[in-house]
Amino acid sequence: MGKRIVVIGAVACGPRAACRAKRLMPEAEVTLIDKDDLISYGACGIPYFISGDVPDENHLRETAFRMVRDVPFFENAKGIDHVLTRTLATEIDRERKVVRVKHLDSEKEEEIPYDNLVLAVGGIPQVPPIPGRDLDGVFTVSNLHQAMEIKNRLAQGQVERAVILGAGPIGLEMAEAFTDLWGVKTTVLEYFDQPLPRILDTPLARIVAHHLEEKGVRLVLNARVKEIRGQDGRVKEVVEEKETYPADLVIIATGVRPNVELAQKAGLLVNQGIVVNNRLQTSDPAIYAGGDCVEIPHLVLGRRVVMPFGSLANRHGRIIGDNLAGRPTSFPGTVGAFIMKCFDLAVGATGISLTVAREEGFEAEYALLNQTEREHYFPGAGFIFVELVFDRRTRRVLGFQAVGPHTDGTLARLYAVSSILPRRPTVEDLISLELPYAPPYTTALDPLHSLAHVAENLLTGGLVPIEWDEVLRRLREGDPNTVFIDTRHPREAEPLVKKYPGRWIHVEYDKIRREMDRIPRDKDVIFICNSSMRAYEAQRWLMAAGYTRTFVPLGGLNFVRRWGVEI
Amino acid sequence: MGKRIVVIGAVACGPRAACRAKRLMPEAEVTLIDKDDLISYGACGIPYFISGDVPDENHLRETAFRMVRDVPFFENAKGIDHVLTRTLATEIDRERKVVRVKHLDSEKEEEIPYDNLVLAVGGIPQVPPIPGRDLDGVFTVSNLHQAMEIKNRLAQGQVERAVILGAGPIGLEMAEAFTDLWGVKTTVLEYFDQPLPRILDTPLARIVAHHLEEKGVRLVLNARVKEIRGQDGRVKEVVEEKETYPADLVIIATGVRPNVELAQKAGLLVNQGIVVNNRLQTSDPAIYAGGDCVEIPHLVLGRRVVMPFGSLANRHGRIIGDNLAGRPTSFPGTVGAFIMKCFDLAVGATGISLTVAREEGFEAEYALLNQTEREHYFPGAGFIFVELVFDRRTRRVLGFQAVGPHTDGTLARLYAVSSILPRRPTVEDLISLELPYAPPYTTALDPLHSLAHVAENLLTGGLVPIEWDEVLRRLREGDPNTVFIDTRHPREAEPLVKKYPGRWIHVEYDKIRREMDRIPRDKDVIFICNSSMRAYEAQRWLMAAGYTRTFVPLGGLNFVRRWGVEI
Repeated sequence: MGKRIVVIGAVACGPRAACRAKRLMPEAEVTLIDKDDLISYGACGIPYFISGDVPDENHLRETAFRMVRDVPFFENAKGIDHVLTRTLATEIDRERKVVRVKHLDSEKEEEIPYDNLVLAVGGIPQVPPIPGRDLDGVFTVSNLHQAMEIKNRLAQGQVERAVILGAGPIGLEMAEAFTDLWGVKTTVLEYFDQPLPRILDTPLARIVAHHLEEKGVRLVLNARVKEIRGQDGRVKEVVEEKETYPADLVIIATGVRPNVELAQKAGLLVNQGIVVNNRLQTSDPAIYAGGDCVEIPHLVLGRRVVMPFGSLANRHGRIIGDNLAGRPTSFPGTVGAFIMKCFDLAVGATGISLTVAREEGFEAEYALLNQTEREHYFPGAGFIFVELVFDRRTRRVLGFQAVGPHTDGTLARLYAVSSILPRRPTVEDLISLELPYAPPYTTALDPLHSLAHVAENLLTGGLVPIEWDEVLRRLREGDPNTVFIDTRHPREAEPLVKKYPGRWIHVEYDKIRREMDRIPRDKDVIFICNSSMRAYEAQRWLMAAGYTRTFVPLGGLNFVRRWGVEI
Repeated sequence: MGKRIVVIGAVACGPRAACRAKRLMPEAEVTLIDKDDLISYGACGIPYFISGDVPDENHLRETAFRMVRDVPFFENAKGIDHVLTRTLATEIDRERKVVRVKHLDSEKEEEIPYDNLVLAVGGIPQVPPIPGRDLDGVFTVSNLHQAMEIKNRLAQGQVERAVILGAGPIGLEMAEAFTDLWGVKTTVLEYFDQPLPRILDTPLARIVAHHLEEKGVRLVLNARVKEIRGQDGRVKEVVEEKETYPADLVIIATGVRPNVELAQKAGLLVNQGIVVNNRLQTSDPAIYAGGDCVEIPHLVLGRRVVMPFGSLANRHGRIIGDNLAGRPTSFPGTVGAFIMKCFDLAVGATGISLTVAREEGFEAEYALLNQTEREHYFPGAGFIFVELVFDRRTRRVLGFQAVGPHTDGTLARLYAVSSILPRRPTVEDLISLELPYAPPYTTALDPLHSLAHVAENLLTGGLVPIEWDEVLRRLREGDPNTVFIDTRHPREAEPLVKKYPGRWIHVEYDKIRREMDRIPRDKDVIFICNSSMRAYEAQRWLMAAGYTRTFVPLGGLNFVRRWGVEI
């Protein structure tokens, strides 16, 4: 026998590390341990199992060729020497190189010796200390058993009203699962003032918020949950500062934190997560760690972060397998590439948000754009809404966010930016991006190009922006020193010209130069159109004519419309 | 007035250069010239106009906000000082800095002085010297007038049978337009032995070829067209070496070449196309050129090429506009990023093909993969077929090809690879690519990751491939020294085990290690599965057990199936 490899954790990173190591090094003795009996399942698929899109939990456990990844599978197909489920690793003795485990069914304990150990122990739901969180009917969706129990209750008609704590990715995916197929009245309570906080900035988050409401999800922002109350041990309602929400089911989706207990007890270096080098080795070179339990370098932030993403866990697994087998392989770090489905929308982000960038001290600015995903003349072209976050000083691209239709168009733009982000691209690099083009798929200049153009125009001062919140405030308050120049088609402008007489003025895009004398020089002039493209060009003509008080609200009226704001 | 800028050509690059220059430099006097009366249209949209997807030709001429880009549009909205249509530029006098033009309607000639000149004169259809190519009913789809005439004939029921010369992108798009909506019996005659020659390699080209046949398009490869014959001046049939094809309409889509005549006459440096530097300046620094008429650096090939793509022409326009206005801006070069719709398929490529790479002297190898675009358990997940071309010596990625369902999933993968190709990525860089993941959009490890894994396994010798053509030959000829080990589900293997007794042996994936003694050591062993993943793992186990004659046909049986080959 070759060297003894023990892998703790058999969901994503663990099995992949074990199988890769065994394949490269068939003489090794590989042991795979998990405390659960269900292993190697697609945890990211749980919301689609609960929704019913995936009818059977076994589908989440199957290979693409429909073989269930159970214990015999790993033993027979993958050649893993020992697969121990319902087995809890309780202690690591690094000096003697043994793992102490407890067999949960028999309660027996034993010691397993290793030459190399892999910690793929995942994350733990971060449950805030709310009274009542242990009531029957309160879940965290942290494993497949919980998912099956939730689906059972839905299928048995036990759930009329659900409350979800947290409007992060899991919370929103669960909201969709409950509402869309099961017709459960769902309320999402979010501590912050927007859904997907720190992932999306306000302009895109507001689109998501409005879409949730359109789909019948009640979204309560700035929520302060005080207590979960039950009756006969079963959840009954969630008490928030201002209101109480009846609930037959409560999901706590307020994040996960790395499971570091075992590592900590063993004296391994632990910060927010288990500390690893680029080879995914812990402070003990015989022990590797990967997946949701580790800290990894963030390539935009320039410091280590916790990033509990399934795709990273899978990549970690292969890298650890390589290193175990003596093939030096590195994990370069993350850019936080993210995507999710939210009802009819694809929502994604990569890099860092404006909020995070400013907290971190970047001189961060942002550009917005909305545009059809494909040529506007191609049937069924939907709109994509995008934000670019960039550093004014270095012109470096820091982040990108997108909300589009539920096609793969949003994926495509995220793929492009995520792919180049590790190489520290500038706004110019984004302008220079070569992307394939055909009218059924995209536009001759991609939304990414146009977005980068907006950023460049902001950097050169060719485009002078104003925040939409400020625009809406001035409009509502009737600010006497501001006029709004609507550059759109007369039919589009007419209702607003009537509604705001004297302040909302229609000068169509192609008449700006000829009818410039209709635009006052002694007031703030705010140019309006649907995408901000015509507004930008109008501003250029006026700036060239010596106007000094012109502004363009970034992104255009289509944003405001998608926020559900009536103007 | 500021400096005088004259732009020749008003389709894609020209208008963009003119408008950008004017916007940045409103004091300039900008003249835009085109020989046609229809300008600034989406030429890449022509097949969709002909198919009827785009009902009206004006849609191809409109902005996203539905304003037709005609002469008044450029004058009023864009501030272009003079827009001269139906005006042919006949000569450039570089010493006197004047362009000689002829007004095609009045036949009058005049001289237009310039400080800077822009050549955006596009390409010219490359029509082979076939007798009869001037007959009525023979078209090249080189402008919107021709497109309108073709659509008229279709709409009037004048076209029952069409013949298209050339199975390049335009030829195939036209074949779809004719067949899908108009029900025209369409034959495509291609000189080479595959559709999309030099863009796709054989494995993916065969999928496209079979799909065309499935959709009712007759595709004739290795065709040698001798003559186009007419009756009363109108096209009647196309005479090929072996067969004659009746035709009411013939499209010649055998490529375009740069329009260099004007530049050549003016003594500018011309090679295959007009020679420009990275600022898109010709050999005369006062004259810029961009779009289909120029040669540009190919960043994978390392030499200049002609690449007549609409997206590049648009990017050139903006770069020229910047440089004209005194903002130094560079065009870094191209990687040849390409995508098209072909009936139900999205077909794309970026970088260079294996054929081209080997011609150019690279030690090129290729990897194949097929996989679901999104998690296999997600409803409606279709298959994507991908090829990676890489250099064995440097491990550099040279090219990527994909054929997938008509979603934007193919676009996404092309976006990722195209974005990094200019940075000379290696196979390892592709393995390290961070891509966003969610089950509705992709798989935890993207097909790109898995494809790069195949390439790495090939580079390390962990995977020993065999060409499918060789596999099929041995199977058909009953090669006595070869056995085929089918690792799939018994139900899948059964018919072939019966059909090829003793030679086609079923050893299921998870029984390879236990039942290895059923596999002969003294024969060539070819492992079979649908995607080549199980076959690869089987090969690893056998190699570890000392087998020396094992092979895996790349890509798996799904490729063969999609070629329409019965085994």
